Amino acid sequence: MAEQYQVLLRHLRDITNLNRASAVLDWDQQTQMPPGGAAARASQLATLARISHELFTGETTARLLEDTAHELDGAAYDSDEMSMVRVTQLDYEEAVKLPADHVAAVSEATSLAHAVWAKARQDNHFQSFQSALERIVDLMIQRADYLGYPDQPYDALLNGYERGITTAQVKQIFDVHKPELVALIATIREHANQVDDSILHQPFDIDKQRDFALDIVKGFGFDFERGRQDLSVHPFATHFSNNDVRLTTRFLSDFLNPALFGMMHEAGHGMYEQGVAAALDGTPLGGGTSLGVHESQSRLWENIVGRSKPFWNWALPQLKAAFPTQLGNVDLDTFYKAINVVKPSFIRVEADEATYNLHIMLRFELESAMIAGKVKVADLPEEWNERFEAFFGITPPSDKMGVLQDIHWSMGLIGYFPTYALGNLLSAQYYNKAIQDHPSIPSDIANGKFDTLLSWLQTNIHQHGRKFNADELTRRITGESIQSRDYIAYLQRKYSEIYGI
Amino acid sequence: MAEQYQVLLRHLRDITNLNRASAVLDWDQQTQMPPGGAAARASQLATLARISHELFTGETTARLLEDTAHELDGAAYDSDEMSMVRVTQLDYEEAVKLPADHVAAVSEATSLAHAVWAKARQDNHFQSFQSALERIVDLMIQRADYLGYPDQPYDALLNGYERGITTAQVKQIFDVHKPELVALIATIREHANQVDDSILHQPFDIDKQRDFALDIVKGFGFDFERGRQDLSVHPFATHFSNNDVRLTTRFLSDFLNPALFGMMHEAGHGMYEQGVAAALDGTPLGGGTSLGVHESQSRLWENIVGRSKPFWNWALPQLKAAFPTQLGNVDLDTFYKAINVVKPSFIRVEADEATYNLHIMLRFELESAMIAGKVKVADLPEEWNERFEAFFGITPPSDKMGVLQDIHWSMGLIGYFPTYALGNLLSAQYYNKAIQDHPSIPSDIANGKFDTLLSWLQTNIHQHGRKFNADELTRRITGESIQSRDYIAYLQRKYSEIYGI
Repeated sequence: MAEQYQVLLRHLRDITNLNRASAVLDWDQQTQMPPGGAAARASQLATLARISHELFTGETTARLLEDTAHELDGAAYDSDEMSMVRVTQLDYEEAVKLPADHVAAVSEATSLAHAVWAKARQDNHFQSFQSALERIVDLMIQRADYLGYPDQPYDALLNGYERGITTAQVKQIFDVHKPELVALIATIREHANQVDDSILHQPFDIDKQRDFALDIVKGFGFDFERGRQDLSVHPFATHFSNNDVRLTTRFLSDFLNPALFGMMHEAGHGMYEQGVAAALDGTPLGGGTSLGVHESQSRLWENIVGRSKPFWNWALPQLKAAFPTQLGNVDLDTFYKAINVVKPSFIRVEADEATYNLHIMLRFELESAMIAGKVKVADLPEEWNERFEAFFGITPPSDKMGVLQDIHWSMGLIGYFPTYALGNLLSAQYYNKAIQDHPSIPSDIANGKFDTLLSWLQTNIHQHGRKFNADELTRRITGESIQSRDYIAYLQRKYSEIYGI
Repeated sequence: MAEQYQVLLRHLRDITNLNRASAVLDWDQQTQMPPGGAAARASQLATLARISHELFTGETTARLLEDTAHELDGAAYDSDEMSMVRVTQLDYEEAVKLPADHVAAVSEATSLAHAVWAKARQDNHFQSFQSALERIVDLMIQRADYLGYPDQPYDALLNGYERGITTAQVKQIFDVHKPELVALIATIREHANQVDDSILHQPFDIDKQRDFALDIVKGFGFDFERGRQDLSVHPFATHFSNNDVRLTTRFLSDFLNPALFGMMHEAGHGMYEQGVAAALDGTPLGGGTSLGVHESQSRLWENIVGRSKPFWNWALPQLKAAFPTQLGNVDLDTFYKAINVVKPSFIRVEADEATYNLHIMLRFELESAMIAGKVKVADLPEEWNERFEAFFGITPPSDKMGVLQDIHWSMGLIGYFPTYALGNLLSAQYYNKAIQDHPSIPSDIANGKFDTLLSWLQTNIHQHGRKFNADELTRRITGESIQSRDYIAYLQRKYSEIYGI
């Protein structure tokens, strides 16, 4: 019994090991590698990716999946074994659809485009990026054709980051809460003088920032026996096993937020990986299930916990002890308001909780329209600015602060942005269910006790790894699909208090 | 023209890339990895090693080597192309001789033996390591049979670390200089009161040790744009490309030598790798040619340069500036003598230049006799102690300080030790030729100018990578085979002055 399954598992473990090795090389490149190492590293990563792809898309995988499916006939849908075969079958079907020359063409186009984009952004000159982006959009339309889609080409791209969701579903979710966000922000703007966040913009010793932030995420439950933290220009989390999870952070000497909320955010991703069941580790199911669910974990710890009053009730005295000169006289209310300031910003990565999803909706509208052939790359700056004014009431002063700000499109990541917004929605949806199950969670947090929440997340989300897609998982936990009701209610409650609305 | 060669090169680059990826994972494990990561890392390394081995020993390699040899017919022996085919052909012939189940058996036996050895050493109880070592010796005898050998089984093992050298040659080299070492040490012992090294054993701030040692090896010419330095329990050097070379160091807060001479030693290995020709990088020829030649580079920088008077004429003022309290009153002569103290020690890794090779000869005699079936594992402690007394005039007080001290046999590394001694000999042999070509080298060193020497090493040794084996390389450079004459003369000259003999 389960003999074929063991053979399949050994095969899949090899492929996973190759992918994890790539992750180690990538982490090293971003945190440790001397500048000279770049060319050889690119070649090493290319070899690992190609061999992994060949091994996975070869005959052996198809045969083992088929034999194992036969062997497992009748096993439970949510068993490790059935889930392994079901999810890997979908991975396989996607992987074999992309011809090697298409993958190579995308790799080449994006390698070239990245430098072109960086230069165009620096020079504030969209036209010099235009043809590189046109090439990428063409390739992504081609990719959608290779992959196939139920309704429109953008579905295929979206599915690469958030399996099982369609463009129509995203559009509907966005349409429901967009007017509510726009209204909320307009109201907040009328009360903007209620909040002053200048206390966060002072000189803060970076070693002390780091020590404090590490203590916080250790308190949350990130296990440093099974992980570590390093510096990088662009913060990220990665894992080589559920027992080896790496976080990175950047620090600013005159602004506290990147250290504090950046560390909590990456630790949220990291605890998700640390919580995956040991039995799934080193297999295709070992890891978070989708970008949206991953982002729900990072945003939950960063915002719902990390920007909450109960949390700072516990943590502020410690932060004041670390920075007595800067924060000695600050009271809880002032601090809580400062970290929750709402300020429409041109830049997505600087956006607060209230405006963030609007930034995403703008990108979703544009990229889905580009893939549908309804918006031309050449018209992007104009289309961007029109929407920005409609959504936020302000117009970007330059393309650098507008359409050129994000790296994603230059990397071929089209269909990726929506997952950020879905993550925000899911964070509130999951948290509501958690406090419904354990009403003590907010008071536990106010006492620096985070394991009630973390255990709930581990049991309901983390342990399952990639067994269920976002929709399946969300239905299992909350009884309904992803929705924006909980997130909007959370924002309205929070900001009504903060801004005295 | 050279079409087949390009195909071969692409194939070999893939294999090299897999091996380099393993090196990254290994470096990470020893310098960065959190404890929890060990199990997954072992599995990742096993997958990479197996896939690399399969790819290299497969039909494709044999066919491409044959086709390319045909295509290159008539090309120069020392061309990149001919060397690639010649050396890779030898690598291939060795690799295919070892059956997978033998490799697995060695891997299993050594995994088990390592912990058994560590415990036995800790408990000072050889008998509890005996059966594990017997198993390893049996497997190594078996390995020699698989590999084949010109004269005796130990040849085959030696060849794995120092291609092209035989047991008889090593024995002859050792026989020639053993009596001279024994005599030198006996004379030094009579003048032992000439040297006091207590100034090296004081409290030294570790950050300052690190800064000083990094400055020194930067001065030598180790390029930190193409390399870095980290901490590890056991210092080592590794490379992922000639442009990405990693050194590790350990520091002691009350002894200067591990920082100073350890860093110089590893930088010597590292500069060798950084000096390999770009055209060979990422191929089987990219890297030092043998353990002996590698050790010649580390020992040259550590000892011939780093323990020389000209060097400290330049460096001591800087060291005194870093540690004014500890070394402010020390003069060059006192310091120079202290770092060159000769003290027969039971422990190889603590040995000075005069006694080091005797430690190796003892191990060479024992391990070659074990492989020849002339010494039984059970008799090792007795055989060890008898020899130790004959060589050094002192008897180890325990097996922990004797036969159990080294990790090598527990890892299956039999045939490896001789390369340390060969490295010492080669360091003097190469250095003599370098100063013959550039008589200014000693005075350059006295002025902190190291590029005359480094350029000579790059031109004569480093750039060739693995194109020539140690003997070929040494003949090309010095016109003769490896010999002990230069090393003995170097020691006699040096210690006569230091000990006033």
